[in-house]
Amino acid sequence: MFDARDTAVNDQSSHEDGGRTARKRKAILEAATGVFLKKGYLGAGMDEIALLADVSKQTIYKQFASKEALFIEIVSGLTNAGSDAVHNIIPDLAEGEDLQAYLEAYANRQLAIVLTPRLMQLRRMVIGEAGRFPDLGKALYEGGPKRAMAAMAAMFQHLAQRGLLRVDDATMAASHFNWLVMSQPLNQAMLLGDAGIPEAAALRQYAADGVRVFLAAYGAR
Amino acid sequence: MFDARDTAVNDQSSHEDGGRTARKRKAILEAATGVFLKKGYLGAGMDEIALLADVSKQTIYKQFASKEALFIEIVSGLTNAGSDAVHNIIPDLAEGEDLQAYLEAYANRQLAIVLTPRLMQLRRMVIGEAGRFPDLGKALYEGGPKRAMAAMAAMFQHLAQRGLLRVDDATMAASHFNWLVMSQPLNQAMLLGDAGIPEAAALRQYAADGVRVFLAAYGAR
Repeated sequence: MFDARDTAVNDQSSHEDGGRTARKRKAILEAATGVFLKKGYLGAGMDEIALLADVSKQTIYKQFASKEALFIEIVSGLTNAGSDAVHNIIPDLAEGEDLQAYLEAYANRQLAIVLTPRLMQLRRMVIGEAGRFPDLGKALYEGGPKRAMAAMAAMFQHLAQRGLLRVDDATMAASHFNWLVMSQPLNQAMLLGDAGIPEAAALRQYAADGVRVFLAAYGAR
Repeated sequence: MFDARDTAVNDQSSHEDGGRTARKRKAILEAATGVFLKKGYLGAGMDEIALLADVSKQTIYKQFASKEALFIEIVSGLTNAGSDAVHNIIPDLAEGEDLQAYLEAYANRQLAIVLTPRLMQLRRMVIGEAGRFPDLGKALYEGGPKRAMAAMAAMFQHLAQRGLLRVDDATMAASHFNWLVMSQPLNQAMLLGDAGIPEAAALRQYAADGVRVFLAAYGAR
């Protein structure tokens, strides 16, 4: 005989299980991020991560097949959250809105979100390990620059269709925009450490100058 | 009584000492480069370097005050050799020579010299250690991109004085040129490992497209 209460109870219990699982997953990811950044990929131990997250090692391995899978999940999570914040929040250029100001706002937002100490520390660590663990670098590349440039290419294609830009190769245009704005600050942050992340005023200058050069090459007029 | 032969003998003996010292120095630097690239900065041991170079540890410490000093010497040597090869060999633009072709040749040369597996491995390793050992990153930054961009800024200033470019801020122009050409290949090489270094045809395309954008913004016409 079918009893609706059983289903209700089961649903709630499964929902509670799901909530507990999600909380544990979050605790594991937070603990692991801290341990990876402190100890490096090779030095990070699952025992320490389990201790900090207050779960058993078995619980970690139930959710993440290996240390590498756990690390890739962290990289993807941080870079995708960054990419989403840059690309999903900025609205289309409004009719009559100034293109240069619009692109500068885009560039400033991108710089502010990408050039955080935590993302820069993670990026340095992934680059340091890219020779031995190429999948880590691939995860960061695809969740970070590649994803960001795909979103930009779509934006430039759209602006070209509206007659506001002249773009033959939207992917190359996105690469030019991205690196005109990001490269100098990013390379300083990579090689000089967090102290190499430029001040806000310098970042605004890189954004403005990068957009000026981009528009000289790709502007409609 | 003065005897010319004594001086001659002393000179020769001191010259031989100098030659032996230089040979040992070269052997130490070669052995250390291999050990650093294989073991990473932290993992590299002076015992292994001494064994490979066939010298005593005391001999190493007579020439290099510390492991850090030895590493910085390697970084400076490789990056300065690279920079010199890019910037000292290319002659001034001749009267009537095509500016675009000249800048493309410059860009292609820069890409070919910087994007070698050995320099890329070293750069990845230095970035991975930049948080803990900021002096290593500083040595690479100053011997590499900073030095390259200073040479380019001087070149652009000179071309502007000849009326061939319009340049307000030669340092910013150098940064734009450098990163328009280098960024996409360099970031791929950083995150994707040596397999991420683009093929020669793709590099020529980055050089040509980067120069086109640069000239749209900075060209005299």
